[in-house]
Amino acid sequence: MTARPQIRVLGIDPGTASTGFGIVDSRAQQLTTVCGGVISTTTDSPLEQRLAAIAAGIDHLLDEHSPDALAIEEVYFGRNVRSAFAVGQARGAVLASAGGRDIPCFSYTPQAVKLAVCGSGAARKDQVQRMVGSLLSLAEPPQSDHAADALALAICHAFRARPVAEGVRAAAQNANR
Amino acid sequence: MTARPQIRVLGIDPGTASTGFGIVDSRAQQLTTVCGGVISTTTDSPLEQRLAAIAAGIDHLLDEHSPDALAIEEVYFGRNVRSAFAVGQARGAVLASAGGRDIPCFSYTPQAVKLAVCGSGAARKDQVQRMVGSLLSLAEPPQSDHAADALALAICHAFRARPVAEGVRAAAQNANR
Repeated sequence: MTARPQIRVLGIDPGTASTGFGIVDSRAQQLTTVCGGVISTTTDSPLEQRLAAIAAGIDHLLDEHSPDALAIEEVYFGRNVRSAFAVGQARGAVLASAGGRDIPCFSYTPQAVKLAVCGSGAARKDQVQRMVGSLLSLAEPPQSDHAADALALAICHAFRARPVAEGVRAAAQNANR
Repeated sequence: MTARPQIRVLGIDPGTASTGFGIVDSRAQQLTTVCGGVISTTTDSPLEQRLAAIAAGIDHLLDEHSPDALAIEEVYFGRNVRSAFAVGQARGAVLASAGGRDIPCFSYTPQAVKLAVCGSGAARKDQVQRMVGSLLSLAEPPQSDHAADALALAICHAFRARPVAEGVRAAAQNANR
């Protein structure tokens, strides 16, 4: 079997206060981490400055690491409408940056991400963190929830970018470790 | 009485398909229109491209006309959560652009805008359009709802940027024409 071309995915967990990011390279069954972290903004800044800081952080990641795609969390229309709206604004700033650089964007629900990474759409946060650490062969799981979620999004898209059966198989094998 | 320093306000009615814009200059009781219109995006483009087009349009207006402030519609958390979320995304793209150029942004509810422009928070759309035309001494009211709403937002902020009594008086006088 010839090696599948590498895909580099930037995962984003958007939020006004903390936007998690994680970049993952995928080639065949191999996943490696390029970087991961959090873009933080302070509550004493006006909203437009906070959103501009998020957009500037995304621009920097795109320029520095040239990902092939961006995977971002689909907002859950749940009980907290105000929180969904705030996440929507952060999401708008992120997507506008990516669109301005012609990076294709893909949305995944938290359930789809958990299913891809843990083999169950109902996995707990600590399970996602552990599986992200395991799939990326990190010395220890990411400490930040937001960075872990962003890396999980990147992994989810990297799996989807492969033929479906292979992605599912890889997820299942890893879930059974 | 010395002339009050002029303020130039960019009003924005955000939306993924159509973002209305309108720039108004205000000095004392005088309001003049700099420009107004709509940034339109097509439904067959990916969301990130649409948001990037909106951000690029805002960047262009800011660079071309150097407004002192941006006035934007506060989203109504009503029955249609999905629509509020979509507007939130467009709003995020707009605010990130303005923040990136250090333009202070101000939010107004539709009720506050109607009150400022028509003297009643329950004014109908056609009343807003007529009053915008009248306050700005336009030959005829703006044809586009979105442009009219954006101009109304700019007028609302221009009134607020004056001492309150004067803004209210101007609105009341005009509402009684």
